[in-house]
Amino acid sequence: MSEDYDFRVASLGKATIPSPIKMSPVAGDNLADYVTDEQRILYDLHVKPSERTRQLRPEEMIEIAGPRKEIFFHPSHTKVGIVSCGGLCPGINDVIRSIVRSLWYLYGVRRIVGIRNGYKGLLPEFSYEDIPLDPGAVDDIHQMGGTILGTSRGGGERTREIADAIERMNLNVLFTVGGDGTQKGALAIAEELERRGEKVSVVGIPKTIDNDVSFIDKSFGFETAVARAAEAVASAHSEAHSTVNGIGLVKLMGRESGFIAAHTALAVNEANFVLIPEVPFEIEGPNGLLVHLRKRLETSSHAVIIVAEGAGQHLLEGSNGLDASGNKILADIGLHLKARIQAYFDELGIETNMKYIDPSYMIRSSKADASDAFYCSRLGSNAVHAAMAGKTKVLVGLVNDCYAYVPTELAVGHRKHVDPEGSLWRDVLIATQQPEVMTNG
Amino acid sequence: MSEDYDFRVASLGKATIPSPIKMSPVAGDNLADYVTDEQRILYDLHVKPSERTRQLRPEEMIEIAGPRKEIFFHPSHTKVGIVSCGGLCPGINDVIRSIVRSLWYLYGVRRIVGIRNGYKGLLPEFSYEDIPLDPGAVDDIHQMGGTILGTSRGGGERTREIADAIERMNLNVLFTVGGDGTQKGALAIAEELERRGEKVSVVGIPKTIDNDVSFIDKSFGFETAVARAAEAVASAHSEAHSTVNGIGLVKLMGRESGFIAAHTALAVNEANFVLIPEVPFEIEGPNGLLVHLRKRLETSSHAVIIVAEGAGQHLLEGSNGLDASGNKILADIGLHLKARIQAYFDELGIETNMKYIDPSYMIRSSKADASDAFYCSRLGSNAVHAAMAGKTKVLVGLVNDCYAYVPTELAVGHRKHVDPEGSLWRDVLIATQQPEVMTNG
Amino acid sequence: MSEDYDFRVASLGKATIPSPIKMSPVAGDNLADYVTDEQRILYDLHVKPSERTRQLRPEEMIEIAGPRKEIFFHPSHTKVGIVSCGGLCPGINDVIRSIVRSLWYLYGVRRIVGIRNGYKGLLPEFSYEDIPLDPGAVDDIHQMGGTILGTSRGGGERTREIADAIERMNLNVLFTVGGDGTQKGALAIAEELERRGEKVSVVGIPKTIDNDVSFIDKSFGFETAVARAAEAVASAHSEAHSTVNGIGLVKLMGRESGFIAAHTALAVNEANFVLIPEVPFEIEGPNGLLVHLRKRLETSSHAVIIVAEGAGQHLLEGSNGLDASGNKILADIGLHLKARIQAYFDELGIETNMKYIDPSYMIRSSKADASDAFYCSRLGSNAVHAAMAGKTKVLVGLVNDCYAYVPTELAVGHRKHVDPEGSLWRDVLIATQQPEVMTNG
Amino acid sequence: MSEDYDFRVASLGKATIPSPIKMSPVAGDNLADYVTDEQRILYDLHVKPSERTRQLRPEEMIEIAGPRKEIFFHPSHTKVGIVSCGGLCPGINDVIRSIVRSLWYLYGVRRIVGIRNGYKGLLPEFSYEDIPLDPGAVDDIHQMGGTILGTSRGGGERTREIADAIERMNLNVLFTVGGDGTQKGALAIAEELERRGEKVSVVGIPKTIDNDVSFIDKSFGFETAVARAAEAVASAHSEAHSTVNGIGLVKLMGRESGFIAAHTALAVNEANFVLIPEVPFEIEGPNGLLVHLRKRLETSSHAVIIVAEGAGQHLLEGSNGLDASGNKILADIGLHLKARIQAYFDELGIETNMKYIDPSYMIRSSKADASDAFYCSRLGSNAVHAAMAGKTKVLVGLVNDCYAYVPTELAVGHRKHVDPEGSLWRDVLIATQQPEVMTNG
Repeated sequence: MSEDYDFRVASLGKATIPSPIKMSPVAGDNLADYVTDEQRILYDLHVKPSERTRQLRPEEMIEIAGPRKEIFFHPSHTKVGIVSCGGLCPGINDVIRSIVRSLWYLYGVRRIVGIRNGYKGLLPEFSYEDIPLDPGAVDDIHQMGGTILGTSRGGGERTREIADAIERMNLNVLFTVGGDGTQKGALAIAEELERRGEKVSVVGIPKTIDNDVSFIDKSFGFETAVARAAEAVASAHSEAHSTVNGIGLVKLMGRESGFIAAHTALAVNEANFVLIPEVPFEIEGPNGLLVHLRKRLETSSHAVIIVAEGAGQHLLEGSNGLDASGNKILADIGLHLKARIQAYFDELGIETNMKYIDPSYMIRSSKADASDAFYCSRLGSNAVHAAMAGKTKVLVGLVNDCYAYVPTELAVGHRKHVDPEGSLWRDVLIATQQPEVMTNG
Repeated sequence: MSEDYDFRVASLGKATIPSPIKMSPVAGDNLADYVTDEQRILYDLHVKPSERTRQLRPEEMIEIAGPRKEIFFHPSHTKVGIVSCGGLCPGINDVIRSIVRSLWYLYGVRRIVGIRNGYKGLLPEFSYEDIPLDPGAVDDIHQMGGTILGTSRGGGERTREIADAIERMNLNVLFTVGGDGTQKGALAIAEELERRGEKVSVVGIPKTIDNDVSFIDKSFGFETAVARAAEAVASAHSEAHSTVNGIGLVKLMGRESGFIAAHTALAVNEANFVLIPEVPFEIEGPNGLLVHLRKRLETSSHAVIIVAEGAGQHLLEGSNGLDASGNKILADIGLHLKARIQAYFDELGIETNMKYIDPSYMIRSSKADASDAFYCSRLGSNAVHAAMAGKTKVLVGLVNDCYAYVPTELAVGHRKHVDPEGSLWRDVLIATQQPEVMTNG
Repeated sequence: MSEDYDFRVASLGKATIPSPIKMSPVAGDNLADYVTDEQRILYDLHVKPSERTRQLRPEEMIEIAGPRKEIFFHPSHTKVGIVSCGGLCPGINDVIRSIVRSLWYLYGVRRIVGIRNGYKGLLPEFSYEDIPLDPGAVDDIHQMGGTILGTSRGGGERTREIADAIERMNLNVLFTVGGDGTQKGALAIAEELERRGEKVSVVGIPKTIDNDVSFIDKSFGFETAVARAAEAVASAHSEAHSTVNGIGLVKLMGRESGFIAAHTALAVNEANFVLIPEVPFEIEGPNGLLVHLRKRLETSSHAVIIVAEGAGQHLLEGSNGLDASGNKILADIGLHLKARIQAYFDELGIETNMKYIDPSYMIRSSKADASDAFYCSRLGSNAVHAAMAGKTKVLVGLVNDCYAYVPTELAVGHRKHVDPEGSLWRDVLIATQQPEVMTNG
Repeated sequence: MSEDYDFRVASLGKATIPSPIKMSPVAGDNLADYVTDEQRILYDLHVKPSERTRQLRPEEMIEIAGPRKEIFFHPSHTKVGIVSCGGLCPGINDVIRSIVRSLWYLYGVRRIVGIRNGYKGLLPEFSYEDIPLDPGAVDDIHQMGGTILGTSRGGGERTREIADAIERMNLNVLFTVGGDGTQKGALAIAEELERRGEKVSVVGIPKTIDNDVSFIDKSFGFETAVARAAEAVASAHSEAHSTVNGIGLVKLMGRESGFIAAHTALAVNEANFVLIPEVPFEIEGPNGLLVHLRKRLETSSHAVIIVAEGAGQHLLEGSNGLDASGNKILADIGLHLKARIQAYFDELGIETNMKYIDPSYMIRSSKADASDAFYCSRLGSNAVHAAMAGKTKVLVGLVNDCYAYVPTELAVGHRKHVDPEGSLWRDVLIATQQPEVMTNG
């Protein structure tokens, strides 16, 4: 499978300026070291006992993130822009803060601007002013959820206009904090600038609360999201447990991937049914959810259901088009389930107490927990190292527990999914004891 | 006004058994004292400088809660039931735990049962088993939200059947943890038992997350509810603040009283509009909410609205009947506002980003914060002192910052309201800077 | 007792300028009202049933806080200083924020400065620059613990120099956020300014994490302190409960008053011994703590002890002088107890596991919980109303659950104590089941 | 380096009993799969671009955790013991809960006992009763910190007596939740039982709050510990920032490894000095900590220091022997630093405000955060899969982000350390801007 990948990172040119960061160039002296472009890790580490040799190709080796001994941009001449796009996610401010502080303190870059309200801030019809950024401006922003830059959906497809704006602003570096659509846009912008002969480094910090970025172990904000989601599920359990035939139904994020739902179920261990986009299910019929839910109530008189927002879309009517980020507008599976469950038990004359919880905005706007704060801090500084070294069209993230640079082109366009045959989903099935198959076929 | 009140507490008879709690009967020896029935506080403490004398009548004096030197029930012969009714509220388990521990450790009562699922647990058609309670059974229950006894709505109006059940169970004491309907039911049950010549003490611990019990400073769970609600409003603010024309709309509890909404607004200080049942407002028209919201967006480009669930009911269509607790079924002002605001700005061609948050069940199912844990602990023990002393048809609560006993009859049937002319609402207006009047008349 | 009090508030002169706050001057129109100086409450609300009349004297009536119809200072000519002194306490930033916003938005005052590092910021030998304050400067400060102004101990006794500084700065109003020593200093400063014929309003917001301000129901930060302390005690309980003969010993604040210890014990309900300054105890001897602790371990094999820092000072050697705030330097009862307990059981050959927790700084530096945020918000605006109306030498606080103004002179110099014969300590004894007397006399 | 390792897992014999867990034995059917012993991952994934082939040896391949198709023990004949040893750590109860539930619900094992108070519970001179465990007994224990089984230090070296106890109890499986000493003991016990011909599976769940288990990505409880530690450092920062020359000094866990200190520093980003065991430093001298601290105060007037408990031990006098777990008793670097810093500035006549925080017990006794709850849940079930399949002398943990089985022998005896030349320490240096070298040599 990995044969199709090419993990080699694009560069604006040879890095020849000595880094202002003073580090040890040699190993073994007990002093922290620069990272060289030659330091790589393998992506695929699965192996069979019978395997005796493995062929290794350069393109399947992943570059390790970190400060390079030589950099491409002269710090005092460098102007940097930061833009945040798409929905909120815990940790955006932490990433912005880390980028600004790393640029300022480590490299001595003094010209840093925040672009307001996502890509829209680069479009001609909006007249948002940029936000000048320095360590004082970002000192306490990690204490707050949201993004101090503002955000919006869409706009990234207007490649030429954005490239115009970047030229006008004389940016040398653009950091894009955003999801799949944002990074796709960033790639097109970088290519447009390349065509124009501009040496602009475009470095992405993938932001997706759903944790569905390919090749990246986890996206920032994901652990905080699970922690908040776990509180919502614990609430649903308290409610369900305290009433006769109480049903707690919690809708969580997860447009195409059920990671939040699966992790939350294993973190709380009170859910009886977890419904995710990757695993088809039916509501009606002899092997559908409703029948299994009834059985659960008969034996335990309460039940908790977690449903990812993208689950069961085939059960809902018609397409809903795309939103400004290019994401499909999903039909609301949560409200649909709520209505169907109530109708089903009403018809049966069984009294139930349905408590429906949709904590999405409370999760998205949460400030980052410590583990995400740690992660965002390191993502930010490693993104800065990439940019200053002249790398471009690249994302920074954890790969096999190692901070690494992954070509944007490789990561965008297909999402990471919960594997129905993998260990995560297996452990969810085990923990919930839900039927593995809830279809009637 | 206070002339109509009669605060004197009913009693099953003379308390003649020496209390097993060893305390000092005299003041001045630096040892904790019993409380006598003669210790009272005034309810109305407002006064004018010109006032030189005040006439005092026994019926306007409130009995102070606490252990009496003599008690009515012989602990080893006493059987106690505890029932929790109505919606969840932080602290129910804390109250149950305190009652059980106080009965067991202080008075040596050994026969304590939890009645399952509210008043329904006392009705003949349900065959729920009682839950035997002792300190081991309640040791850790305060760590969890909800109620270990279960709860339900309604049933309390079936007075005779419940009195039958109490007779059959040989209960000497019934603690009722519940709201206005529950305590009304408790009063009728107590009177029915009185008619039958049964000496059963019925003591209520008022539970209403809305904080609308008359005469009681605050109901348990209220501070926790405000703390959780404040988190939701902070989320709404983060969301609203991070997008262009972001509108955060949070629906909070408050059927007939806006205390949660008002306290939350002052605790977070990010809300721009607070809508409560006590203060009429209009959505449309030249002085309606929509116009003021538009002005707010024009100057600040984001806004946060808190709406209590009972606000603006006159704006919604038709009656919705009563639920099983006898409460009016409210039309959903939150969803109505959400739809109207969106339509209004869509018509105007103004892009907005609406984030609607309904945290109700997450609030209700929260475990109690420390201040409520403290309060519940003392409510429970003071409720036990009342019951063991043979008091009945009585509620326990804080009055003028003093633990006190208030006749159930006096407190039920009319609710405490936010006074539009009082200091709480004044400080909300000051903090939000919302227009004092949003009607067009 | 209350005959010695005089609750009448001092004033700089007649308030004649119409308030810029627009409110209703009449009751009954459903619009929020101004408060008049004539609105008062009684302090002592205890009464005996046999009492038929009560004589009322103006000096025992407490002024109700709130905006007056006429004010003393012309907002556009008013310059305001804010100073925070003494140890940290949750909510200082909330108070500062509320003062600044109330001055700015309600009254239109534009010249507000923060004095850096307590009274020292007003002394000639320090050259700290003032901090200009406006709504932008305080927008997010409530998200953080500590005080943005900085704080220090002492300095307030240098009355003339501080009065000189206030004259030099042309301050019309000084808000002092601090404890007993701070407010004593404030009173002397106000009197000195009065002697000089300066019309400067000095308004105090009492800050004492120990909750020991006379006449005030609770000081700001107290509920947050109890909540954090409760977490520490829960930790101690987990530790103690998980080992053989585990002893969790938690030292809490409480120099002369045991309110934090008592409230925490009732909020957590896991403490077996609570030691406070107001209740003498002995460590050694047949009825001392050690013997009772041994008995507890024999029956339950774990124990939790809460000790207030000011408890048992008579057991420790010699005086330790005063600190810069004029507070006695306390000998460390926590470490003393820890050592004595370990030595005692070592001598007996009984293995124990002692876990000593001193959470003081983590508590003091916490940000305010919602209930304190609510309280601080209202304290700040009511302090501003007092100052603008020309009141001086006055504190703002809750009295009998009502926001009120109390003369500084009356409140300083004697502290509120836990009454060993009162209901709070009684309920602690009941909850811990500790011996009421642990002395050998 | 990896050539010395042998990752092959020991087994009690051939697993021939069909697993009661129903899973798919084939890939590609979209149904969750069993894991076979043949599924392995590589440990070392670093590679150089020039590398073209890699030789693979079976002993360097790590077994992937998960349910096997055939198991070794017949569930209805299996008796299982669980023991927890050493200091507290967030998540022990979560692990116990997961083991019990997995045994009960997945495999149908009905005889499960908790051994009380660590290995001591297996020694003849203690007469602790075992704790019978079933899903009801563990239902809510994850809500609480600590361990319901109790714990103690030491005892594991009394191999024969413990083997006797295991024989007497007829245990087929022993789960050991504990640190390096505990797992060393477990290995010896397993070998002793092997010598006696007993088929007992001994499976370890490594517990070390310091995160220093070799080969394991992170130990459970570590993320929670960092989250709590981050709160303590934020407190220290608030305190330091609010006073003149405020110094916040926080002592964190980390006997031989500075992972908690390093992670916390990156999660909070307020620390100026991080002192860990792996990086030598001096306090005195021209390049020692004190001089650098003074410079920091001169420029910023406040400072935050994090010190791991094992840092700078060479600076303290003499050896302190070993504790019952066989760990060196450390001299207290925190108190030593506190005293030296104070003396240094006192001598210089510079006023400072030192706030010393030791949050260790509050961290250790914390309940697990969501990410640790998730981890513990999966560790527990994967430990059960190993034991039921007859694997022994094995630890379960995350390796390269994959749940895996690692031979106990390989992992014990040497600890994982923060690499002073690695990326973690590099990013700490970058974030704190502390001097890389603070020795005078």
